Amino acid sequence: MSKILVFGHKNPDTDSICSALVKEKFEKNNGLDVEAVRLGNINKETKYVLNYLNIEEPRYIESIDDEQEVILVDHNEFTQSVNNIENAKIKKVVDHHRICEFKTAEPLYYLAEPVGCTSTILYKEFKRNNMQIERKEAILMLSAIISDTLLFKSPTCTEDDKLAAKDLASIANIDVEKYGLEMLKAGTDLSDLTELELINLDAKEVMLKNSKAIIAQVNTASIEDMMKRKDKIEEEMKKVIEEKNLDIFFFAITDIINSNSQAIVLGKKAYITESAYNVKLENNTAFLKGVVSRKKQIIPVLMEQE
Amino acid sequence: MSKILVFGHKNPDTDSICSALVKEKFEKNNGLDVEAVRLGNINKETKYVLNYLNIEEPRYIESIDDEQEVILVDHNEFTQSVNNIENAKIKKVVDHHRICEFKTAEPLYYLAEPVGCTSTILYKEFKRNNMQIERKEAILMLSAIISDTLLFKSPTCTEDDKLAAKDLASIANIDVEKYGLEMLKAGTDLSDLTELELINLDAKEVMLKNSKAIIAQVNTASIEDMMKRKDKIEEEMKKVIEEKNLDIFFFAITDIINSNSQAIVLGKKAYITESAYNVKLENNTAFLKGVVSRKKQIIPVLMEQE
Repeated sequence: MSKILVFGHKNPDTDSICSALVKEKFEKNNGLDVEAVRLGNINKETKYVLNYLNIEEPRYIESIDDEQEVILVDHNEFTQSVNNIENAKIKKVVDHHRICEFKTAEPLYYLAEPVGCTSTILYKEFKRNNMQIERKEAILMLSAIISDTLLFKSPTCTEDDKLAAKDLASIANIDVEKYGLEMLKAGTDLSDLTELELINLDAKEVMLKNSKAIIAQVNTASIEDMMKRKDKIEEEMKKVIEEKNLDIFFFAITDIINSNSQAIVLGKKAYITESAYNVKLENNTAFLKGVVSRKKQIIPVLMEQE
Repeated sequence: MSKILVFGHKNPDTDSICSALVKEKFEKNNGLDVEAVRLGNINKETKYVLNYLNIEEPRYIESIDDEQEVILVDHNEFTQSVNNIENAKIKKVVDHHRICEFKTAEPLYYLAEPVGCTSTILYKEFKRNNMQIERKEAILMLSAIISDTLLFKSPTCTEDDKLAAKDLASIANIDVEKYGLEMLKAGTDLSDLTELELINLDAKEVMLKNSKAIIAQVNTASIEDMMKRKDKIEEEMKKVIEEKNLDIFFFAITDIINSNSQAIVLGKKAYITESAYNVKLENNTAFLKGVVSRKKQIIPVLMEQE
């Protein structure tokens, strides 16, 4: 029997990588033969975390064999998962997203909570099982929480996330604000990425009510700098719309310092952005005050307009 | 704001009713404004439990309003749930089945475990929250576990179910074997049901890979007695097949004393039963030795054949 593979979503963010590594540790402690893997390139924010801990990137996989046993973290929608997920044996899921386009043939362990970060749920799993959390896992989980909640400033951040982070910070003996800001800033250095890489960096394919959409997001310390690349970004977005037959491609450039986003929106349903946020798209773009969370402030808000 | 409604599946069995009542208590303890309701008639087995405890049946509902907040127990598939579930706000799910034909627009609390009974998971929720279990809830959960595992004899029964039942029996100060057998036997008195009521008693509409199916099950102490009604049962099954455009209607008559089932199978895909169990359907029926669990021994086994 091959190992059970543990992974987060495609275009992995810090939560997807860190939670896979932490879940690997948790299941190993429970005696399972598991391996954390990744479904895409590691971004600079996550690299900062792995470098800080001096640990290797998980192995990259593109697809899985039929009947492969898997554990999913930080996602459930098959469009965001590994190729051939339809034919996998999904043993467990730990996630904090809506459930959609997900199905299994057999009963499984599924734990979802409406909190800001998958690692917060994993933290509770450790606690519930009276399992000791070591420094490495504490920093991995803390990094994921900081990343997903933008240092507790996102509207997705809950009391549970804050409590988990506080305890994890004390285990890790780390200054959360200092470490967190350095980590987030490391993630905003996107100067060496092509425009295609930018729009793919943290892109999620989602079904809105009746529309095929990609909602992509990048974090930045300067919206202005990023907008200098708007024409080329739009060029690449158009290609993806054609290739994937999308109804809408929503690209959010999120200012992590001031907690706002600039959206560039293309596709035949781009117009729903206007009623969703009561803004006018000018040259395909609009400033969205206070919007930082794809999960809370973009996906459900766009869905309402369909 | 109206109450949050808590309910199990249509054609409710003992787990669906008892788990809804127990979850109501759990959430009330946590300060939520909830009401357990039911989506169908209470069967005789469940009536035995409610009479034993001298408690009222939950209120029957047929449909819900848009945006109604709900908590699902013992199911997730929309085809098995309340009418208009697509437009509900699903806050929580506690279940022990595969996940299928289920989706939400927003993140939620979802707890599934591959154990024999929903109440086993609820029992663990009480424990985890250091919440005291009172005698009434202990008997409700114990009854659900006995019902779903056929007194721990079903292959769906896990160590967790047994451990939960043991602790619950000690809280309730009850002789499990004696109480359990009386409860199960109460459920096998089906003499006053019409054939239509029989096939609807515990019927689940499920999608196999590509086939629309109903898998119905009744418990009996005598397969022979039940088979005397075969012709009329088939008549009613045929009507349902036509009405719902089913590919297969699988009716399992389960002998709870000897742990076998007699299947009556109709529909254009009835033939998959033969390769699934290596039997020959004669006059639309076959004896299935050792088969008692729809979840473990019927649904996945039929799916394999498609």
